[in-house]
Amino acid sequence: MYDGLTVYGSTEFLDNLIDKKSLFLCTIATTATSKIPGITGAGASPDLTEYTPAADVEMIVHDRPLCLTEIPKTVSDGGSAPTPAIITKAALNLAKIPFMVANAGVLVKPNLPYISLGEIPGKDIRTGKAVHNPKKIFENGKILAGMLSNLTDHLIIGESTPAGTTTALGVLTALGYDASFKVSGSLIENPHDLKKKVVSEGLKAAGIHWGEKVSDPFKAVEAVGDPMIPAVAGLIMGSQIPVTLAGGTQMTAVCALIKSLQPDFDFSQVCIATTIFVVEDDNSNIQHILKQIGEISLYAADPLFHESDNENLQRYLSGSVKEGVGAGGAIMAAILQGTDIHQILQEIENLCKKIF
Amino acid sequence: MYDGLTVYGSTEFLDNLIDKKSLFLCTIATTATSKIPGITGAGASPDLTEYTPAADVEMIVHDRPLCLTEIPKTVSDGGSAPTPAIITKAALNLAKIPFMVANAGVLVKPNLPYISLGEIPGKDIRTGKAVHNPKKIFENGKILAGMLSNLTDHLIIGESTPAGTTTALGVLTALGYDASFKVSGSLIENPHDLKKKVVSEGLKAAGIHWGEKVSDPFKAVEAVGDPMIPAVAGLIMGSQIPVTLAGGTQMTAVCALIKSLQPDFDFSQVCIATTIFVVEDDNSNIQHILKQIGEISLYAADPLFHESDNENLQRYLSGSVKEGVGAGGAIMAAILQGTDIHQILQEIENLCKKIF
Repeated sequence: MYDGLTVYGSTEFLDNLIDKKSLFLCTIATTATSKIPGITGAGASPDLTEYTPAADVEMIVHDRPLCLTEIPKTVSDGGSAPTPAIITKAALNLAKIPFMVANAGVLVKPNLPYISLGEIPGKDIRTGKAVHNPKKIFENGKILAGMLSNLTDHLIIGESTPAGTTTALGVLTALGYDASFKVSGSLIENPHDLKKKVVSEGLKAAGIHWGEKVSDPFKAVEAVGDPMIPAVAGLIMGSQIPVTLAGGTQMTAVCALIKSLQPDFDFSQVCIATTIFVVEDDNSNIQHILKQIGEISLYAADPLFHESDNENLQRYLSGSVKEGVGAGGAIMAAILQGTDIHQILQEIENLCKKIF
Repeated sequence: MYDGLTVYGSTEFLDNLIDKKSLFLCTIATTATSKIPGITGAGASPDLTEYTPAADVEMIVHDRPLCLTEIPKTVSDGGSAPTPAIITKAALNLAKIPFMVANAGVLVKPNLPYISLGEIPGKDIRTGKAVHNPKKIFENGKILAGMLSNLTDHLIIGESTPAGTTTALGVLTALGYDASFKVSGSLIENPHDLKKKVVSEGLKAAGIHWGEKVSDPFKAVEAVGDPMIPAVAGLIMGSQIPVTLAGGTQMTAVCALIKSLQPDFDFSQVCIATTIFVVEDDNSNIQHILKQIGEISLYAADPLFHESDNENLQRYLSGSVKEGVGAGGAIMAAILQGTDIHQILQEIENLCKKIF
């Protein structure tokens, strides 16, 4: 029925959304944590990682980045894999799903209209003071979701936040979850030890002991999170329509924040949609994290890159990139509109030829 | 049929929109021109006028301004009239019309999620360098309209731009239109001489002679306009759905810019909706300006303040405020959803009691 999707949990969430109107909202944020060498692959060099969110959404809207001369890519294994924004663009194009951008706090602002939820980029979490006023970003997310709930039937929230799995590890840890060696990452070799070390330093700087659960959930974000996490948590809690969290282990940190803010929150109108590259990854475990939070449906999209002749796309098969810019959720949303997964692969290949 | 609305032109635009989905987008901008004493009533004092757009939209979303302790009002005639945002809020509330904010360039940013089209507030037009990169604001407006066209059937664009009739006079003049003594204003005594003097100074500083039509339309905005004008022009030109310009003579400057950019632009999917306080004003003449541009339907809403016991609302009858924050267009949109004009008056009175 849902060819191209692997279902973990029930299909009920999907069944209710067939042919309904969707809006894809890409939430962008930066954290100076991404400039730590070796922590992320989301950018050709550490200094360029803070351009990646703006470049990703510019590529979707303008067919090319305007803030950078080059398309963001993950460099590893002697070659480079294109940004997952290309997957998102292909899926949304084919299914004619409207695309908007929410800025939770970025250093480099995109050259296009975006919804402002926060003005201040995230700081290096090793300072223990990563996010300025996460409550305000959260409240803005809530208000925005109320506005958007009147304009569509289904909200798909993607993200572009380089080093976001490290900040996710930080928030999950500070909220009392076991996520060490479980978060995903954009590099073939997931630098779990580095991520843990960076989080440890941040927690220490904030006066939080590893394994201790902070009493104020926003304190976890403020200390070792990124601006995307409170923005998306607010969007979910303010939404009156079903929400797809289009992302990997970063989205579990969002769910954990919601659970901490409202322990009886009903997740039945929320799902996580990601790629098979995240769900089938041996070096991370999204299901292990999710199980600690609650029953949240998980869907994994397979863009069929093993059927592609494109060498750069094939790098996803060896563990490069994996997910980002809501790629998995965009595929899911397109499938719900009746788009064939093979068509999506073809459109991705076409875009690769056209853009690169 | 359209009780509460006076129709100038055809009802066809209205007939096609009955019961269709609408989205109200309030475009906010500031221009330091508003700090010239006596030029505008949109704020309790000249220095507070740059808070008015943020306070207006905060009042609609949060029920009270957050950036100021007081609700914006026009002080004149020994008393004060409430901001027209209260009319907009009442009409949108009753008709359950979604509300969003687009920031074209404000000095004081609102505490709520807004769509960013421009980052830089307008300068005093006497400098002859009023708006930074109007083309970019215009392009962002175009892109945003494309996004919103997929989310609703009808876009209503309001504005809050203190001193916006002066900048409108500037742009209209630089584009070759006769608008002297024809633009509206928020004060009982419209300071036409001051407005003309300020525009003259701006044109002179920009090297444009009065009566000379500039060859590059964006140059008119850059020299003596405000950021709202290119934003809304872009929104109209990028829209694939009918657009209501909810405003008074400021919106004629927007139409003039479009006409200069594309002389054969088809205005059949555009209307201007304002209040009777603008259309019936003896000290301005919106129809005189509009006729020079082309055939654009004009609708005037009457909130029945002559039937109200509220003294502050009655000040609108003697020429205070007149229009703003899309008040007239919000009433029109509510009427299209079947809301009775008497109900709207009652809701305005209720809000006045609740908020003030």
